[in-house]
Amino acid sequence: MALWNVTGARCTACGKVIPAEPDITTCPHCGGILDIEYDYDLIRESAEKNPFSARQDRSMWRYMEFLPVEGKGSRPLLRAGGSPLYRAEALGRKIGLPNLWIKDDGQNPTASLKDRASAMAVIKAQEAGRTTIACSSTGNAASSLAGNAAAAGLSTYIFVPSRAPKGKVAQLMMFGATVVLVEGSYEDTFRISAEAIDRWGWYNRNAAINPFLMEGKKTVSLEIAEQLGFVMPDYVAVSVGDGCTIGGVWKGFKDLYGAGLIDRLPRLISVQASGCCPINTAAAAGTMDWVPQEENTLADSIAVGVPRNPVKALRAISESNGVIVNVSDEEIMAAMRLLGAHAGVFAEPAGATGTAGVKKAVEMGLIEENASVVSIVTGNGLKDVANAIRAAGEPMSIKPDMDELLAAFEARGIKG
Amino acid sequence: MALWNVTGARCTACGKVIPAEPDITTCPHCGGILDIEYDYDLIRESAEKNPFSARQDRSMWRYMEFLPVEGKGSRPLLRAGGSPLYRAEALGRKIGLPNLWIKDDGQNPTASLKDRASAMAVIKAQEAGRTTIACSSTGNAASSLAGNAAAAGLSTYIFVPSRAPKGKVAQLMMFGATVVLVEGSYEDTFRISAEAIDRWGWYNRNAAINPFLMEGKKTVSLEIAEQLGFVMPDYVAVSVGDGCTIGGVWKGFKDLYGAGLIDRLPRLISVQASGCCPINTAAAAGTMDWVPQEENTLADSIAVGVPRNPVKALRAISESNGVIVNVSDEEIMAAMRLLGAHAGVFAEPAGATGTAGVKKAVEMGLIEENASVVSIVTGNGLKDVANAIRAAGEPMSIKPDMDELLAAFEARGIKG
Repeated sequence: MALWNVTGARCTACGKVIPAEPDITTCPHCGGILDIEYDYDLIRESAEKNPFSARQDRSMWRYMEFLPVEGKGSRPLLRAGGSPLYRAEALGRKIGLPNLWIKDDGQNPTASLKDRASAMAVIKAQEAGRTTIACSSTGNAASSLAGNAAAAGLSTYIFVPSRAPKGKVAQLMMFGATVVLVEGSYEDTFRISAEAIDRWGWYNRNAAINPFLMEGKKTVSLEIAEQLGFVMPDYVAVSVGDGCTIGGVWKGFKDLYGAGLIDRLPRLISVQASGCCPINTAAAAGTMDWVPQEENTLADSIAVGVPRNPVKALRAISESNGVIVNVSDEEIMAAMRLLGAHAGVFAEPAGATGTAGVKKAVEMGLIEENASVVSIVTGNGLKDVANAIRAAGEPMSIKPDMDELLAAFEARGIKG
Repeated sequence: MALWNVTGARCTACGKVIPAEPDITTCPHCGGILDIEYDYDLIRESAEKNPFSARQDRSMWRYMEFLPVEGKGSRPLLRAGGSPLYRAEALGRKIGLPNLWIKDDGQNPTASLKDRASAMAVIKAQEAGRTTIACSSTGNAASSLAGNAAAAGLSTYIFVPSRAPKGKVAQLMMFGATVVLVEGSYEDTFRISAEAIDRWGWYNRNAAINPFLMEGKKTVSLEIAEQLGFVMPDYVAVSVGDGCTIGGVWKGFKDLYGAGLIDRLPRLISVQASGCCPINTAAAAGTMDWVPQEENTLADSIAVGVPRNPVKALRAISESNGVIVNVSDEEIMAAMRLLGAHAGVFAEPAGATGTAGVKKAVEMGLIEENASVVSIVTGNGLKDVANAIRAAGEPMSIKPDMDELLAAFEARGIKG
């Protein structure tokens, strides 16, 4: 069934356009990554006829004209999207950036931005008549797929590196997924999952391979735009791993611009961990020829030495005249503490990486002090409690006795 | 400043009414627990003039006429409330209850229902001109207070039993709270916190002591009502610890009924852990004279041997002609697996306890098969990963090699 608003899927490598069938993966001509294209006139008409402010749906599906799905019948059961955008005044003052906003995408059904992509994957798998979905992931894509598929009654096969934090693995098991921990890197995990998907013919929710995922992810940008009254901020910061999320963020803004709903585009701030930054390294050198790197960072979600979607990520950075920042694990942990103590937002390491990059960009003079900045928190800190405790420290412990409490306070210089 | 919609705070013990000042605690006459009372005519007028369906606020604050706060200026920064209500068809079929709904309150800023109470506490502390708030808690009230206070720039002193799961403690530390782990029971923790609050004069966010907290919690019922088009379900199930949550749930429905927004009240299903069920034991015996119990359950949030709010809990059960169910830890873990695999909802043990009770009530014939039931999930499973893994098991682990994968699948009887 043809989608009313979609014109096709264009290959980012050879430029050929193919029909946007629900089970397309990479380009059949050259193996390149596909990009879903829309009829922007139809989108604009629909948005004018039925204003967003009048819509009751509080999930990502409130933007139906921007999404490549067949109809209203095929919605997943979990409420993906609709996450809050916080005006982070106190945190902004702390880092010298008065106009700072935090988009807390840890507030999603399985506690990460990836729910937006997985909700889309579940719908497209159903449209394709499939009942089993598989993916490899550093963890969040996996748990979001498992949760969204469980709600829809689909089976899942999930491959994650054995380094994945316990919280993410616990989610997978609880959602009833068949979980394979792979003793190796994200690249090893991706490879064995691809072999298994080929062998058993499961629906493929692998990052980059499935062009619809990015269409789910882009809804974070549609929400940011609506939450800001369609007045764009100067910058939007996001952490970067395999490149799909920053690609999706950019796609959202480009689609809004294409449909005439915003009149300028923000610049992206692409933040990677210093210990694993192949995309930023290439972007800084002005080349598409990225080089694989080791995966040396505690931010497991973005520890991707061989990114699967460098093309879209590098284009997004280049097209948006993006700012490139790498941050150390110490800077990531400091950003976790700042987000918690001054914004009440508990982020996992990769979730705080964008904000760490914003802070550093201000310090380095890469962005102006009076700029307006939205920093996307991509995942909840509860997913990785071990690193949270590493970042925040252990509490005092006493027997239930006032003298013990007084002594503990005095030892720490706490006045009460 | 008098609140336009509030008539006063009535003592549940001696019946006297006092002004609802922001820093009231228990009854100054007899020490009884206070209950906030409203002018229902004013509430009804306001709701008629400004229909809920036209409101843009997606948090608990969309129900301003039902809430005891001064004005629009005093809102906390985090988006508490607005959690999804899922029609859980697959899970319902699994437990023989076709009309089952899950209210996922794990989708809150700090991932539990307690955010509704803590957001209220932060506002009332600000109205009282205080900058430091304290509480004792089994964990969720604490982390929600720490998060909501951090967002508002207030300091917090938090007392939790040392048994509290790591996820909850990590949240506290990350939100910059001063955290005291107490080596003892919840009762020990409550007692030392009360002494410290007296000594240092902090604003008191302790359960039951502060009558405004329940007014925050009741918003879960306002949302359920609105999400169901103000048509009440037959039953609403919730897990019970110190009694404040079930009391708040009931208060919400009673206020809606008082203001004429619903025309009948649901029956409550009060679910406790068999290893710690002082409230249900008293309710079953038809007495208000509850007896303290040991705290023997993995559901830490409701492991409360000396409940702080038995009066309101027992009245709620009695007034609603409630159903009383106790469940074992095994039944709780089974409910966690069912919620995950058939609804895509990952609950902490106490969060799944309500659903465990629903399942058992169906099996025991305590509720009819064609009844409509809303089960409230009070907290996210990511808060207690250790017990999640205990309930769901560990995944298989392989080297990145197809032969290893085939062997692992064969050993487990997985066909792919």
